[in-house]
Amino acid sequence: MNASASLDAASLLCLGCIFLVPVAIAGLALMNAGLGRSRNAAHLLLSSLCVFSVAVAAYFLCGFAFQGAPGDASYYFTAGYKQWSWIAAGRFLFRGVALDGSPRSLTLLFQIFCVGLAAIIPLGAGGGRWRMGASALSTALLAGWIYPLYAHWVWGGGWLAQLGTNFGLGNGFIDAGGSTAIQAVGGVAGLSAVWILGPRRGKYGSGMPVAIPGHDMVMVCFGCLLTIAGWLGLNSAGALLFGGVAPGGIVLVALNTVLCAALAALSAIFFTRLRFGKPDASLCINGCVGGLVASSAGCAVLSPLTAAAAGLVAGALVTYSVEFLEVRLRIDDPGGTIPIHGLCGIWGALAVAIFANNASGQWIAQLAGVATILGFVLPLTYAINWGINRVWPMRVSLEAERQGLDLHELGAGAYPEFITHGDEFTAG
Amino acid sequence: MNASASLDAASLLCLGCIFLVPVAIAGLALMNAGLGRSRNAAHLLLSSLCVFSVAVAAYFLCGFAFQGAPGDASYYFTAGYKQWSWIAAGRFLFRGVALDGSPRSLTLLFQIFCVGLAAIIPLGAGGGRWRMGASALSTALLAGWIYPLYAHWVWGGGWLAQLGTNFGLGNGFIDAGGSTAIQAVGGVAGLSAVWILGPRRGKYGSGMPVAIPGHDMVMVCFGCLLTIAGWLGLNSAGALLFGGVAPGGIVLVALNTVLCAALAALSAIFFTRLRFGKPDASLCINGCVGGLVASSAGCAVLSPLTAAAAGLVAGALVTYSVEFLEVRLRIDDPGGTIPIHGLCGIWGALAVAIFANNASGQWIAQLAGVATILGFVLPLTYAINWGINRVWPMRVSLEAERQGLDLHELGAGAYPEFITHGDEFTAG
Amino acid sequence: MNASASLDAASLLCLGCIFLVPVAIAGLALMNAGLGRSRNAAHLLLSSLCVFSVAVAAYFLCGFAFQGAPGDASYYFTAGYKQWSWIAAGRFLFRGVALDGSPRSLTLLFQIFCVGLAAIIPLGAGGGRWRMGASALSTALLAGWIYPLYAHWVWGGGWLAQLGTNFGLGNGFIDAGGSTAIQAVGGVAGLSAVWILGPRRGKYGSGMPVAIPGHDMVMVCFGCLLTIAGWLGLNSAGALLFGGVAPGGIVLVALNTVLCAALAALSAIFFTRLRFGKPDASLCINGCVGGLVASSAGCAVLSPLTAAAAGLVAGALVTYSVEFLEVRLRIDDPGGTIPIHGLCGIWGALAVAIFANNASGQWIAQLAGVATILGFVLPLTYAINWGINRVWPMRVSLEAERQGLDLHELGAGAYPEFITHGDEFTAG
Repeated sequence: MNASASLDAASLLCLGCIFLVPVAIAGLALMNAGLGRSRNAAHLLLSSLCVFSVAVAAYFLCGFAFQGAPGDASYYFTAGYKQWSWIAAGRFLFRGVALDGSPRSLTLLFQIFCVGLAAIIPLGAGGGRWRMGASALSTALLAGWIYPLYAHWVWGGGWLAQLGTNFGLGNGFIDAGGSTAIQAVGGVAGLSAVWILGPRRGKYGSGMPVAIPGHDMVMVCFGCLLTIAGWLGLNSAGALLFGGVAPGGIVLVALNTVLCAALAALSAIFFTRLRFGKPDASLCINGCVGGLVASSAGCAVLSPLTAAAAGLVAGALVTYSVEFLEVRLRIDDPGGTIPIHGLCGIWGALAVAIFANNASGQWIAQLAGVATILGFVLPLTYAINWGINRVWPMRVSLEAERQGLDLHELGAGAYPEFITHGDEFTAG
Repeated sequence: MNASASLDAASLLCLGCIFLVPVAIAGLALMNAGLGRSRNAAHLLLSSLCVFSVAVAAYFLCGFAFQGAPGDASYYFTAGYKQWSWIAAGRFLFRGVALDGSPRSLTLLFQIFCVGLAAIIPLGAGGGRWRMGASALSTALLAGWIYPLYAHWVWGGGWLAQLGTNFGLGNGFIDAGGSTAIQAVGGVAGLSAVWILGPRRGKYGSGMPVAIPGHDMVMVCFGCLLTIAGWLGLNSAGALLFGGVAPGGIVLVALNTVLCAALAALSAIFFTRLRFGKPDASLCINGCVGGLVASSAGCAVLSPLTAAAAGLVAGALVTYSVEFLEVRLRIDDPGGTIPIHGLCGIWGALAVAIFANNASGQWIAQLAGVATILGFVLPLTYAINWGINRVWPMRVSLEAERQGLDLHELGAGAYPEFITHGDEFTAG
Repeated sequence: MNASASLDAASLLCLGCIFLVPVAIAGLALMNAGLGRSRNAAHLLLSSLCVFSVAVAAYFLCGFAFQGAPGDASYYFTAGYKQWSWIAAGRFLFRGVALDGSPRSLTLLFQIFCVGLAAIIPLGAGGGRWRMGASALSTALLAGWIYPLYAHWVWGGGWLAQLGTNFGLGNGFIDAGGSTAIQAVGGVAGLSAVWILGPRRGKYGSGMPVAIPGHDMVMVCFGCLLTIAGWLGLNSAGALLFGGVAPGGIVLVALNTVLCAALAALSAIFFTRLRFGKPDASLCINGCVGGLVASSAGCAVLSPLTAAAAGLVAGALVTYSVEFLEVRLRIDDPGGTIPIHGLCGIWGALAVAIFANNASGQWIAQLAGVATILGFVLPLTYAINWGINRVWPMRVSLEAERQGLDLHELGAGAYPEFITHGDEFTAG
């Protein structure tokens, strides 16, 4: 074999970890499909494959040019007598990047899978009513522009990362594994889509929300177990590339990841039992994924004990926020996208401020990162989805929704041989 | 990237292999669910997630403190004028372990996934009647105390490992990948649970055992194929950490694993055809997993040819013991836990004695390890499950069993939209 | 841990990549099962496990002895005043190969999984009518002889590889990841099986082909997403072992793989929409896998832009060839084996000639490799399957086909609890 241009230990480990990220993508897509109805299952999975592909293509075309890696040329604005980088000045189509195993090339490879993961997150929220074409267009803008912009600020040497050196706010915004840059960006994109799409037909038919159970809990739980494996790769690659972690530190990263997820699952089981008398399967599993999401930001700086504590909070957060969103805010989010990826992503960034042994000012940096998600990324994705919806309605017709998106958009159901119940959940 | 504190080849490879173990956990959980009835499928998978999480938490809390790594401080007893280590004297909550990629920290990371894998094994045996709360409590004691104890003896420098240096019995008990320490411990825990739980309602209604087919063979077979990938990681990490294998030796480890599994599958196909006229799908797939289990102990010391031979025996063992257990011993084990993980685990340890090119006395060391499983671990898990059952009955009510554990314990079925047959299998 | 006989970066990375290949096998097997009917699902998956095991056993017994690694002793023929190697002269049962992490031992380990992957490919074409015993026998000859022969020519220093040094045709036949040596060999084996088996009952009952939709699109799409993860390992290991790529070059290999797959998916979505008005789920997913297949040959020599272009072609190729095969050639290929693995495999080899920055004569070398598939491997597999069929009919009886292969060959259905529709698709 060719031994020239060999790689160091960190790069080798990083490559192996990146290859596990698609396992998390497959797991999350399966979860989203299982949490929806059987008449939309093939549509949701084909949409997942479609938006993953669109995200890869858009990121290849221009996304990485806007995101860049630390040290790349970028555009600056001046504020407080300091220069702040706001967008990278890279070239389109990966031109000018040597694809040779350098940290920059590993960042590019890692990010093309991360943007694919972020792209499938909003589908969980819009499941059962979002046209595939509209979700693809929305993804193109997310993956080609919004994701790279925020990721540049966090990981590409942008202004959130500079908060430490320029303003002395700790080490700047810390989010090694992407609790905000991947998960919360996907989560708020899902929230903005749901605001525009509205609830599924029949969800609020009689005023109070009707429970529309997922059609296959086996898929949901199995998807979650697979996602754990993928997340070990996700957090580890992020910690190596963006967290300044040496290869040996990956042991801590992996322990934090699994402890946070396990304690989040137990916390969700405890709180759903407390609240509803029985542990609700979909909430408990969502709690576990919420723990994975929350572990990402601080996977390299938390201790095992604080990672476990962050997981306990994440599990409770998912349990209670699902009800709050559904009943109070009347947001119909079948995949639990907003609690899992949105809220737990934000919680992950805040947990770094609370639990990690931080330099002074880290609190403010973490709040700045979170505020940017809520105050900038959310309005931006809303505006984009609003614009798309104006020229090309995002939602299918009521008749199509009744019929199921599999039949309506793809021409065939996911399970043509199995006999299913009729329309009892959504008689509204 | 941070290149300080870099890792050597063995540690890097070990980390990558550890990250594959959750894939095996996901695969085994899916198999167990598929081998049960549809009315218990969500319960079994959520229980798998629950006991995995409990095991991770218990091992974090105290398990590793009792297990330790070779060279750690431990408590000794004296016998035959020799000092024997019986339990490690570590500190709780991973305190005092540098999580820096050292072999000790890799052992800890590997073991937290292994104990999670061992925890889901008994669920296959108790499927369809074991309350989730009781299985979680049973797991807490298994993962926090029993597993660490036996693993200390085998892998932590305990008395089974010392049989070589202290008594000249070969190299001491050899079980690199955990045929006994993971699989058989899980298997006998499942056996003790089944003894206390009793058979499923209707299984022996008319005296002779009634076949209650699994509800989804696709899940079973796909789970098995995924488990093969995870097992490559499991055996390789075990061989690196506990088998004294150099990174290059992992080629042999992986070949032995896949040859043992493949020949076990072929053997099970042959023997089920011989015995029943047709290859029974669940038995054949169980035979393949039995081959994986049997490969673990000797993955580093067998030759490819003897690994293949061990697989042939494992496949036959599963085929014939399933019937013996069910008809003669009247043990109702829907997931095949006892043949696969119990018997094939023990067979794996014995195969080392028979097939490997051993130092003298190795036979006695291997028998000692197996005798400890049967004479110590089995009674201990039985006593614990018996005690739990006294204060908090482990089995659900007959009415709950008829209704299905999904509805009874979780409040919703796994497949609410699909129409299923009624109670024809269990009309007893 | 044992640090002696440590491995270099390329070997370590290669090992990790090889361990991902079984994930692709599991994914492809799940896809094939989902594309068939529910009454044959368990049969197809158990057949996959069976032929995988047979392939592993046959390759262990004699396959690698015939294939060899570059530099191994082999038999030669003389043509054009040159010596050409046509078959390796290795020893059976892996004898004489040091299983120590050397490139030769890594080749052996990689190839045992590759031959297992090639073995399950024809099952997709013959699904629903191929007896398991006959497919196992056909696989034994494929894995023990045909696959090794062609692989020796491409990867083992055989005459296709020698075209460069002996005849000055570029670098000889280039196929780093096995577009032809794995995929097209499996694809033409499937074609020859289908020619002998004939179409499924009812497929051409009324003259024109009847669409027989797959029974579970969720399995198909989820299998595809998992396969992407496995393919990263497949192409990377191939590029390291057979493409002369340094570890750092794996970044390019992985990017090419994911770009080719993503653009193939988008291309298939576009062209199915154009052709049928709606994106057909199974065609789109098959297009994505076709992109993976096409990426393999040139994964190390294409640029990201040309890999994307190769994917666009692959997606269109699958879309249009499926219809051509079904309507014009009256070939009934439920799993899309021939378009995906056969045609896209050949396309992958030709894409190297078209897109890569090649030495002169590379075109002819690539055409020679493809011509060998069509002019030698295809007739050979046809002859073998024809011979098997003469002594032991490969196809089940009409009654068995009506009943379903699960019941007929295994004695139990895959989904015994679920109620399915009757025979509406195949009333012929």
